Amino acid sequence: MFAPLSESIIGRARKQGLIEINLVNLRDYTHDRRGTVDDVPYGGGPGMLMKPEPLFEAVEALRTPESLVVLTGPRGKRFDQTTARDLTRQSHIILICGHYEGVDERVREGLTDLEVSIGDYVLTNGNLAAMVIVDAVTRLLPGVLGCDESSADESFSAGLLEYPQYTRPAEFRGMSVPEVLLSGNHAEIAAWRKRQAQELTRRLRPDLLSEKEN
Amino acid sequence: MFAPLSESIIGRARKQGLIEINLVNLRDYTHDRRGTVDDVPYGGGPGMLMKPEPLFEAVEALRTPESLVVLTGPRGKRFDQTTARDLTRQSHIILICGHYEGVDERVREGLTDLEVSIGDYVLTNGNLAAMVIVDAVTRLLPGVLGCDESSADESFSAGLLEYPQYTRPAEFRGMSVPEVLLSGNHAEIAAWRKRQAQELTRRLRPDLLSEKEN
Repeated sequence: MFAPLSESIIGRARKQGLIEINLVNLRDYTHDRRGTVDDVPYGGGPGMLMKPEPLFEAVEALRTPESLVVLTGPRGKRFDQTTARDLTRQSHIILICGHYEGVDERVREGLTDLEVSIGDYVLTNGNLAAMVIVDAVTRLLPGVLGCDESSADESFSAGLLEYPQYTRPAEFRGMSVPEVLLSGNHAEIAAWRKRQAQELTRRLRPDLLSEKEN
Repeated sequence: MFAPLSESIIGRARKQGLIEINLVNLRDYTHDRRGTVDDVPYGGGPGMLMKPEPLFEAVEALRTPESLVVLTGPRGKRFDQTTARDLTRQSHIILICGHYEGVDERVREGLTDLEVSIGDYVLTNGNLAAMVIVDAVTRLLPGVLGCDESSADESFSAGLLEYPQYTRPAEFRGMSVPEVLLSGNHAEIAAWRKRQAQELTRRLRPDLLSEKEN
């Protein structure tokens, strides 16, 4: 399930020791032979819930005074690039991956420092959400991206959508690369890109501009 | 990288033939020995872009008159539970997984039917985003969830956050399950849950309520 954490930029960052990721199996913190981590909800209803005991035991065994315990769930603060940047300042993050029907409420009340939501959709469990968070945060850690991979220009980094980008060929199926990008005039290229980014943002995501103004 | 698509509910749905997922390697649609799929951006700047030719060739080889070509990217329509439900009505979806610095703009112009964004954060590539979409959509397909896994009650499904849930034990580290859930009175439980869902939504996500009213 967590194979993506061994690939590409995250995999490389782990090998270089820039980030350490440990996967913890909740069943190691159960005491029955079957390793039960879920149970039926009080009051009835479909699905199973994560039991509180294994989660409390696991987090209590793993956390240090510096740990931030993060739960992914629909009630959480909306995860965005600003939250990702905030999380880079943490030295130890424990990400709880919930089962899809959710966790016992007392995990929120008594164990969670921060609940985040990666979006308004229902996923099978918290695993993909956790990987999204790890990916977004890892990319922002010092030394993870090479000089040729700078994240500064990307969408949301400057509160704007990114300008359109083109590569070869200059002409493809009747669609041409804008002249200015072929001009070699760096000042004009920079001005065009800035204008494009602003226009795209105004048209598609005006909310990003008003956030900036606030 | 795509191991999560073989696990849990998605894996089971594939085995049961409820959904078919094919991973396509873009390098199979290149013509040089190295299988080049990226190139430097016109006008300069960090990172590499996805070249247009392999993407056009791949999509043209794979698409049928019924196909919907979906690109994940920051400029896209915000992916949410409503979009997920809309996508369940498609018979064939081609998800383009972009490289992290993005695709040549002509892929948007000439090839993409729908661009969606899973959230305002920068990921290494479109792979996790594609898996999030596949997960959210697959869960909504008929027959995928068992009777005990109904998705109807979950957050966003009814335009509300989900009510708090509890499982055993009734008392855990000084935190008790609300009396009403232990009462066995189904009408009172249903009323409590509805009130909780409304209160949580009003407090944490008032935007969901105003969407409902519109």
